[in-house]
Amino acid sequence: MITVLSGGVGGARFAAGLAEVAGEKVTIIVNTADDEEFYGLHVSPDLDTVVYTLSGLGDWERGWGIEGDTFRCNEMLGRLGLENWFRIGDADLAMSLFRTLMLRQGYRLTEVVEMARRALGVRARILPMSDDRVRTMVVTESAVLPFQQYFVKLRCEPRVLGVVFDGIERARPTPEVMEALEAAELIVIAPSNPVVSVGPILSLEGVRERLRKSDAKRLAVSPLIGGKTVKGPADKMLAALGIDPTAIGVFKLYSDIIDIMVLDREDSKLAPLIEESGKRCIVTDTLIRSRQESARLAKTILENVGIT
Amino acid sequence: MITVLSGGVGGARFAAGLAEVAGEKVTIIVNTADDEEFYGLHVSPDLDTVVYTLSGLGDWERGWGIEGDTFRCNEMLGRLGLENWFRIGDADLAMSLFRTLMLRQGYRLTEVVEMARRALGVRARILPMSDDRVRTMVVTESAVLPFQQYFVKLRCEPRVLGVVFDGIERARPTPEVMEALEAAELIVIAPSNPVVSVGPILSLEGVRERLRKSDAKRLAVSPLIGGKTVKGPADKMLAALGIDPTAIGVFKLYSDIIDIMVLDREDSKLAPLIEESGKRCIVTDTLIRSRQESARLAKTILENVGIT
Repeated sequence: MITVLSGGVGGARFAAGLAEVAGEKVTIIVNTADDEEFYGLHVSPDLDTVVYTLSGLGDWERGWGIEGDTFRCNEMLGRLGLENWFRIGDADLAMSLFRTLMLRQGYRLTEVVEMARRALGVRARILPMSDDRVRTMVVTESAVLPFQQYFVKLRCEPRVLGVVFDGIERARPTPEVMEALEAAELIVIAPSNPVVSVGPILSLEGVRERLRKSDAKRLAVSPLIGGKTVKGPADKMLAALGIDPTAIGVFKLYSDIIDIMVLDREDSKLAPLIEESGKRCIVTDTLIRSRQESARLAKTILENVGIT
Repeated sequence: MITVLSGGVGGARFAAGLAEVAGEKVTIIVNTADDEEFYGLHVSPDLDTVVYTLSGLGDWERGWGIEGDTFRCNEMLGRLGLENWFRIGDADLAMSLFRTLMLRQGYRLTEVVEMARRALGVRARILPMSDDRVRTMVVTESAVLPFQQYFVKLRCEPRVLGVVFDGIERARPTPEVMEALEAAELIVIAPSNPVVSVGPILSLEGVRERLRKSDAKRLAVSPLIGGKTVKGPADKMLAALGIDPTAIGVFKLYSDIIDIMVLDREDSKLAPLIEESGKRCIVTDTLIRSRQESARLAKTILENVGIT
C-alpha cells in the first residue's frame, strides 16, 4: 500500500501517475484546509482537483475544474449581483451540490468523497485529511484572508507575513487517514505547496508523529525546480516566511519525517547537501507535463525504492 | 395599476405582453405551490418562468428555463448518482442558488424575487403569492405525488383523482399581494391552469374574498381554446376532476370573481352562454405564439376595458 499526502494541482498530477502504475494500492490523503463556502455550498478545491485529475475528467492544463466546462451559472450569479470571482464551472458545480447535500444528510466528508470517486471510476482511494473544518488564513500586511481570497481573488499578490490553520487544534485526522499511514509500505509527500497544502495535513494531531515513527519508506518529491514552483505561490510564500525557496528549504521542512528526497535533474547539485545529513536522494525529471510523464516519474520512484 | 394572477408558461407569455404595453403599472402575482426542493435548493418554476420571460432571457418556445442554456451540471449530478429528471439548466441553476442563499440569509421570498427581477431589468413587479410554503400534491390512483413528480417525472401520465394544496391553511398571502389586489384598477386572471396555477393563489386566505369584493375591473383569459390547452395538462386535469374542459368550465370556476371573460375566436359560440349569466365577453385571438401577439392581446384587452 502506497500513501500519498497531497494538495491540489501538483499533487494531483503526481498522484495520477502513481494511480496509473499502482491502481488501488494507492491512497491519497488530501488537504481540505482551503475548502471554502460559496453560495451556501461546501467547495473542496484540492479534493476535487485530485478526483477530477485521477478520473480523467480534469482540465490538465488549467489544473482545476473539469475539461471543457462552461461557466454559465457563474456568469448568471454575477448578473444577480453576487461576487463570482471564484469561478466554478457548471459541471464542477454538481460536485459541490452533491457534497453539500450529502453532508447535510449526515454523511462524513470521507464518505462523500468515496461515493464521488467510485461514481467517476477512480481506482485509487482518496481521503480528505479530516472530516472537521480547518481553514487556512493568510496573514498579509493589510488583512487576514481566507486562502481562496488570497489565492484566487487577489492572485497571491499581497505579501504574506504568516499562515494560520484556523481550527487545526480541534480538528482530527480521520481514522481512515491514520490507518492509511499505518498500513503504508511507502509514504510519499507529493510535490505540493509545503506550507498551505502539506502543512495542514502534517499539523493535524498525531500525523507528523505517525510519519516520524513509521517503518514505511518515506519520501518527498520537491515541488520546487531551480527554486521555482511549476504552479502556485509556493516559492514566493516560502521566501516570505523566511524559508529558503529551494528543494533544500523544502527538505528541511520534512527532514524529520522522510528518508528520501526526490529532486529534479536541474537541482542535482543540491543532492550532496541532502545526502550529508544521512538521507538519500533520487535525482530524476520531476516536471510533470502529462500523464505519461507522471507515470514515468512514479515508475522511477517505485523501482528506486524496490516496490513493484 | 394592473394586477395579474399567473402560473408558469401561459401566464408568463400573457404577462410579457401586458408588461410591454403597461410597464411598471403591472404587478404579477405568481403561484408558488409547485415550488420544490432539489439538491437542497429552493426551486420556483413558475416564478422563474415569469422572471425569465419578462426579462427576455427565457426560452419562449420551451416555456421554461433560459434560452440557449446548457445542462452540464444536471448531467454531472446524474453521473454522481443523483436523480436528475428535473432538468435545471446551468444558468437557470444560478437563480435557485441565489434564492436559496438569500432565503437562508433571512430575506423573504418576496424580497428575493424583487432583487432578481431588478437585477435582470424587469420593469413589472413580480410577487410570489406567499412567503409561506404551499405544496401542490396530485392524488393519482397509485400515489400522492408532489406536483413536479407528476408534471415532469411522470409527464402528467397518471390519472388525476384530486389535487391538494398542502399547507394552504397555514399559508398567508403576503401584504404586497393583498395591496396589489386592493390598489388594482384591473385584475386579470392569466391563461394559466385554473386548478394548479391559479387555484393555489385563490385558495389563500382572503384572496378570493378580496377579488369578489373588488371595485376593479376583473377579467379572466381562458387558457383553453377549443377545449384544449396550449401547453400543460389543464384540459386533462379539468376533465379528470369532473370539470367541463372548455372556456365555459373555466368561466364557472371564476364566475364569482370576474366581470369579463376573454375567449378565443374559436370559442365565439360560447360567448352567449357566458353573457346570459350577466357577464361580458371579449372575443379575440388569444393564442400567444410571440411577444408581438402577447402585446396585441394586452392592447385589445386594455382598450376594451378602457385603460390606456
